[in-house]
Amino acid sequence: MTDQPRYPTSLGTSSATEIHLLGHDLAEDLMGTVGFGELAFWLVAMRRPSAGEVRVFESVLVALTDHGFTPTAIAARLTDLSAPGALQGAVAAGILGGGSRYLGVTEDTGIFLAQILTEAAQPLPDTEAGWDELAATALRAQRAAGAKVPGLGHPVHKQGDPRTPRLIAIADEEGLHGPHLRLFEALGRMSEPVLGRALPLNGAGVCGAALADLGLPVEMLRGFALLARTAGLLGQIAEERRNPIAPAIYAAVDRNAVYVPPLEPDVP
Amino acid sequence: MTDQPRYPTSLGTSSATEIHLLGHDLAEDLMGTVGFGELAFWLVAMRRPSAGEVRVFESVLVALTDHGFTPTAIAARLTDLSAPGALQGAVAAGILGGGSRYLGVTEDTGIFLAQILTEAAQPLPDTEAGWDELAATALRAQRAAGAKVPGLGHPVHKQGDPRTPRLIAIADEEGLHGPHLRLFEALGRMSEPVLGRALPLNGAGVCGAALADLGLPVEMLRGFALLARTAGLLGQIAEERRNPIAPAIYAAVDRNAVYVPPLEPDVP
Amino acid sequence: MTDQPRYPTSLGTSSATEIHLLGHDLAEDLMGTVGFGELAFWLVAMRRPSAGEVRVFESVLVALTDHGFTPTAIAARLTDLSAPGALQGAVAAGILGGGSRYLGVTEDTGIFLAQILTEAAQPLPDTEAGWDELAATALRAQRAAGAKVPGLGHPVHKQGDPRTPRLIAIADEEGLHGPHLRLFEALGRMSEPVLGRALPLNGAGVCGAALADLGLPVEMLRGFALLARTAGLLGQIAEERRNPIAPAIYAAVDRNAVYVPPLEPDVP
Amino acid sequence: MTDQPRYPTSLGTSSATEIHLLGHDLAEDLMGTVGFGELAFWLVAMRRPSAGEVRVFESVLVALTDHGFTPTAIAARLTDLSAPGALQGAVAAGILGGGSRYLGVTEDTGIFLAQILTEAAQPLPDTEAGWDELAATALRAQRAAGAKVPGLGHPVHKQGDPRTPRLIAIADEEGLHGPHLRLFEALGRMSEPVLGRALPLNGAGVCGAALADLGLPVEMLRGFALLARTAGLLGQIAEERRNPIAPAIYAAVDRNAVYVPPLEPDVP
Repeated sequence: MTDQPRYPTSLGTSSATEIHLLGHDLAEDLMGTVGFGELAFWLVAMRRPSAGEVRVFESVLVALTDHGFTPTAIAARLTDLSAPGALQGAVAAGILGGGSRYLGVTEDTGIFLAQILTEAAQPLPDTEAGWDELAATALRAQRAAGAKVPGLGHPVHKQGDPRTPRLIAIADEEGLHGPHLRLFEALGRMSEPVLGRALPLNGAGVCGAALADLGLPVEMLRGFALLARTAGLLGQIAEERRNPIAPAIYAAVDRNAVYVPPLEPDVP
Repeated sequence: MTDQPRYPTSLGTSSATEIHLLGHDLAEDLMGTVGFGELAFWLVAMRRPSAGEVRVFESVLVALTDHGFTPTAIAARLTDLSAPGALQGAVAAGILGGGSRYLGVTEDTGIFLAQILTEAAQPLPDTEAGWDELAATALRAQRAAGAKVPGLGHPVHKQGDPRTPRLIAIADEEGLHGPHLRLFEALGRMSEPVLGRALPLNGAGVCGAALADLGLPVEMLRGFALLARTAGLLGQIAEERRNPIAPAIYAAVDRNAVYVPPLEPDVP
Repeated sequence: MTDQPRYPTSLGTSSATEIHLLGHDLAEDLMGTVGFGELAFWLVAMRRPSAGEVRVFESVLVALTDHGFTPTAIAARLTDLSAPGALQGAVAAGILGGGSRYLGVTEDTGIFLAQILTEAAQPLPDTEAGWDELAATALRAQRAAGAKVPGLGHPVHKQGDPRTPRLIAIADEEGLHGPHLRLFEALGRMSEPVLGRALPLNGAGVCGAALADLGLPVEMLRGFALLARTAGLLGQIAEERRNPIAPAIYAAVDRNAVYVPPLEPDVP
Repeated sequence: MTDQPRYPTSLGTSSATEIHLLGHDLAEDLMGTVGFGELAFWLVAMRRPSAGEVRVFESVLVALTDHGFTPTAIAARLTDLSAPGALQGAVAAGILGGGSRYLGVTEDTGIFLAQILTEAAQPLPDTEAGWDELAATALRAQRAAGAKVPGLGHPVHKQGDPRTPRLIAIADEEGLHGPHLRLFEALGRMSEPVLGRALPLNGAGVCGAALADLGLPVEMLRGFALLARTAGLLGQIAEERRNPIAPAIYAAVDRNAVYVPPLEPDVP
């Protein structure tokens, strides 16, 4: 009897001769057989996804990988400028921007939709009218609470985010057009009648709805956005090293700094 | 004329109606068509990989995704314990362990092999004997410099890392068994005759050799290990949330702390 | 007319011959004259603190600097083990644990107290009985809402956290025993009569109350805990490098890993 | 007999009734008595510094705390913009820029000077001429090796960094003008005769020399720059929250993005 606890895991374990992952032989059963996106899904869902699920899942990752010069991409480039030789630091700095405002929308939308579906009368609607009614009720509740509706609206793509119809079409092709996506679409349809203006369904939101329809745990959805963004950050950092812009960004800010007296009095 | 610089990029750009990535329409041309691993390769290499290249590339990612309770996995779990609600922080903490000692081997091996090949007489060997000679020269040089050979040896898999022959076989199947892998194999064969003991080719090293054979920039190879590990960290954190072990790890360390006077004198 | 914005700041600016900080000459007016804790206070509060305020402020930082083998300290040590040569990564990994569960208490307490005081009838109480009444009302409201009271209770120091009376005494000596501390003390006194059990006032909480009494912005209080912890992490990492324990922590976890089948079915 | 190791430490330990740090009672002996900078020194050096050592040490921290809109400050502001509510992430993103290029100079200079002094003939020089000779030899060796001399030269303060003479004066006042500073000054004097142009002694470098003269371990010097910068980052983030500029920085970069075809061919 020892005070040393045991640490259970269903993920990676290894012996001198074997490496196991998810209870399978990594070299024999997974390498060359299981795709990377497929493995990422499996590691979180603890079940191997179908080919159709993998296609929808990877479509979401592709949609979220890179959005050009986002604050996260700029932060990663500036960090690689000031701390070259520690790539992990530049990637981590970019990932740390994956919080509530931008990448968080995917998770927020998934959680919001899942909650409505959990509290909704069963069975769930099987007609568009039924979904619209459920959506209208939810929109009224958010408005009454003075709360925003996650996934609705976009600062740039005001006429609609091109990723949204495409992802819904892919989910449809794979027979994975489930209740979270249906409810999300209904929220879009009902935004004008209920909220008074037509709000586009943004890409981050539709990604959250699609991931929730895949049965992935909604409280982990931000993680998939971070995974996608990690690949995007590698592209940004590789480009920064080929053709640097961080020095020009830094110089443009520093050169245009203007000293202003503090807003609060500076009384010794 | 303005002092505002322009910022060139070949990655993501967007307008009110379109989102482009790598010069392609994200929604129409990439989502549902390009795999996630394929896109990650493309973003760094700036060329779309072939199906065979994708299979080797994803095999490498799968090989590096999770190694169980590594220091990075433990750090991520402890961070999620102390800062719940900021998943990006737990992932970043894990990624920050992706430095020279563990995940760095992949990059170090790729850089080491690439350098030997660059400096080698052209054309490169076309026989095993030729590769062995090149490897023997490199091993002698490292020994003379008192330097380790990256990718050789493993603390656990002393009889050989099961990932190594598997990845070489996959590269072979795809016709991507190139000079970096050939040289790496030769280093393994010559380790006993030159260094006096047979050192296994470790998995992190063979991954570096395979990525270099794919023509990926060797100074970015650590980044792919970080990408793979990000997926592994999501699995670790999701498991931590389902079935926590971080509190027990913390308690086991804290409970067994022993105060010892400082090694150096504590003189006021 | 250019599209280049100007970036106002009241902090650091420099020219070829001078470096200014907070509108003062860094070399002539601040170095050797202003203490480091004093400067940290000034940078956030935008006013130079008095000697008494500096003493209370630095007492808080000292109280929060190091708590031994916390999850943050262990994460930093493990990160320095796996990524040696990137000290900033090990420090950052430790800081990332400065979230809601542990270091967050300081800020949560400050915000909680400030809110009660803002909503309280003015003038604020001038008798212990008056503070107790205000505290009792707040405790009942938290209980009714099923919410915890930040700063009350401690897993280890059940009989009272030794930092609490000491910090209150220091604030008292400096004439800085203000309404946040008075309310916090009253919450402690009323916890038994209202909540049914005497809860100790923990050290993280009293630090938040004291910082709020110094007039520091409550939404930045977590930052001072992070600053203090950064110094603690340097001590932890320096000790790790002199006398490593991370390898033993890692080995103890890895050696005691037990594979368990996933809780959820693993159905292909 | 158990397989559970013990974990020795000379830093923080606690029991139900006491909290110890560095072998002292935290509440009774340290809070209100020991300054924060003093404690940071003590935690790394494992000895309590004298009042003069504290003054020099805090002068270094003050010199390094904030340099305005550095890449690290911009990265922290952008991270707080995209992930509000996780202050630790914004601070960590800023700290991750504390690498070789900027904050690293302090450590690089300390290590460079310490190495010359270790290899120098003993006793060390006691005349300016003697220091100049030692410096000239070191400068010639660096030039022969094609290596830069850490701490020499500054992109902005070409006529001299105002922090340098001030810190030397403070060290002098405290009787802590030791061999690292003397050698550093000599390197400055000899840069013109040996390297052909007068290079100013930069502030980051003189800080490294002064910290080394305090007997702090040179391989930890970057850590003190990180500690100082953490306070500066709090100031930057607090200002960002009062008066945001990150949205304008982000917009200026995003608005001026120009798509350029990849440098490498994009061949499917």
